[in-house]
Amino acid sequence: MMVVVDAMGGDFGPRVIVEGSVNASREEKIEVLLVGKEKLIKKELDRIDHSGASVTVINAAEAIDMGEGIFSFRKKRNSSIRVGLKLVKEGKADAFVSTGNTAAVLYLAMKELGVMEGVERPALSLLVPSLKGVTLLIDVGANVNCKPRHLEQFAVMGKIFMENVTGLPNPRIGLMSVGEEESKGNELTKETFERLKSTYLNFIGNVEGKDLYSGKADVIVSDGFTGNVALKVSEGVIESFSRMAKFEIMKNFLSKIGLFLMKRNLKKLYKKVDYSEYGGAQLLGLNGICIIGHGRSTPNAVKNAVKLAKNFVENKVQEKIQNEMAKLSQSQA
Amino acid sequence: MMVVVDAMGGDFGPRVIVEGSVNASREEKIEVLLVGKEKLIKKELDRIDHSGASVTVINAAEAIDMGEGIFSFRKKRNSSIRVGLKLVKEGKADAFVSTGNTAAVLYLAMKELGVMEGVERPALSLLVPSLKGVTLLIDVGANVNCKPRHLEQFAVMGKIFMENVTGLPNPRIGLMSVGEEESKGNELTKETFERLKSTYLNFIGNVEGKDLYSGKADVIVSDGFTGNVALKVSEGVIESFSRMAKFEIMKNFLSKIGLFLMKRNLKKLYKKVDYSEYGGAQLLGLNGICIIGHGRSTPNAVKNAVKLAKNFVENKVQEKIQNEMAKLSQSQA
Repeated sequence: MMVVVDAMGGDFGPRVIVEGSVNASREEKIEVLLVGKEKLIKKELDRIDHSGASVTVINAAEAIDMGEGIFSFRKKRNSSIRVGLKLVKEGKADAFVSTGNTAAVLYLAMKELGVMEGVERPALSLLVPSLKGVTLLIDVGANVNCKPRHLEQFAVMGKIFMENVTGLPNPRIGLMSVGEEESKGNELTKETFERLKSTYLNFIGNVEGKDLYSGKADVIVSDGFTGNVALKVSEGVIESFSRMAKFEIMKNFLSKIGLFLMKRNLKKLYKKVDYSEYGGAQLLGLNGICIIGHGRSTPNAVKNAVKLAKNFVENKVQEKIQNEMAKLSQSQA
Repeated sequence: MMVVVDAMGGDFGPRVIVEGSVNASREEKIEVLLVGKEKLIKKELDRIDHSGASVTVINAAEAIDMGEGIFSFRKKRNSSIRVGLKLVKEGKADAFVSTGNTAAVLYLAMKELGVMEGVERPALSLLVPSLKGVTLLIDVGANVNCKPRHLEQFAVMGKIFMENVTGLPNPRIGLMSVGEEESKGNELTKETFERLKSTYLNFIGNVEGKDLYSGKADVIVSDGFTGNVALKVSEGVIESFSRMAKFEIMKNFLSKIGLFLMKRNLKKLYKKVDYSEYGGAQLLGLNGICIIGHGRSTPNAVKNAVKLAKNFVENKVQEKIQNEMAKLSQSQA
């Protein structure tokens, strides 16, 4: 098992990525290929104990920064993202992991790995913590303009992911809309509802924004525009309200002590709700495994992203998606 | 100044509505017309001290429950919502307030009050608390399928609302999208971006989901589908994470004490983030003022909804929207 990790991505530079990759290699018996500026990576490797880990450094002369746009993705022919994806494409590695510029990874993965036969639109999916475990939201931003048949494909890919990666049989599929009744929704969701009703999927109907975290569905299907807004609203709520809470609490001595007493349990909560714990987003429907971690990933999140890649390989998720999508595209034709 | 309040709406029945209305009338010197089942309302009035308040009860034989659908809205000719709206239509009252079935209020308000000249799609807008004050999100669910010119109209109506109701001059208008750059977004937002750029509005470009609470924009324009999902995701995050937090905190004695010590400050925070504090959503673009409060409104929220209605009337928001929309529709034609 060989996983390529983009050592140049992420808000915190190579340090956290190298550390997370070393831990993943040691704990999971995975060979990790660290792609990026060789000198920088080696310096980070020297800094930490990497005994028991199998880590190889592959040089890539360029790095794409977090803020760069499509012009850079194209121009930098030797970016760590592109070099890493090529290793997967050429069969020299089993999966690619990056916590770098999401738009760059999306663009280059589509280009380098190519789209799976039968798939019209690869989708980016993400596991989010819910009251009852985890829920997969698909798509979270790869496709901002969608047709009903694309959403149907997302539903099938999401189902296979949940069954094989989280081990949940026959996951409940919900459609993100503005009300539970079949009559609620926009043109896209109404037509998608009709389609999903007549599939073999365990379709439970429309769900609402509040159900993203309620655990009502195991997979929530959405166009990438709505999915992206939903995800970023969640991040914003948590961030803004934490800041407001801190501000209120710090005004008062007693409540400061209160916060101190709660700290250990709040940390546990934070771990539960921090979706980097779940290893990052998955690009489904490409000819190759591609995991995109959050830019703010910690070493632990990077480790979990590598583990997730291993899980994909071991459970033959790619082959299973390929089989189902071939069948689906025939029925959609 | 006369405000009609639907006494039958809301999750908690007439009790909280009557109490909130009495307080609004007393504090703001407003005449309140309570519409609904006369006996029930009078019973609630007898229960509380309503000295100094000017409250008149208007009988309406029927009530539309929170879960009822469009068939009921049409059939119940004497529902409190319809009777109340008619009073505004006939000029017997200045504004209508309900914390009842949102779909019913939307449907009946469109039908009874009618759409303002020059407005293609009335929109439902809502003030949400942000790190820097409040932000208006428009539309939050009245229009699930939108065209760019509708979003342009929402932007103008939102601007007028913010200027005249919250007193904020030249509010910053943001467009809800999936990235800040002009190139990011779906077909609808890209075309809308083009339109908004060339208006006299203080258009600051695209904003993202996380900016709903960051205070980056004063008005965030969105189609009603995305706006509704964004709003309900926020509610879901807060509810689910509060439950998870409580669960974690209650596991441990020290953190329980911590929570106790923080209680007073958490209450203050709760008041700040509770959007019912801001009086409810406003239906903009109709021939009459219509405020829709949250079903879970407390007496205080009902009071604030009535105050908001007064604010609308005193600041001549309707006339100002009418003037601007007449101009806009000529330029859009």
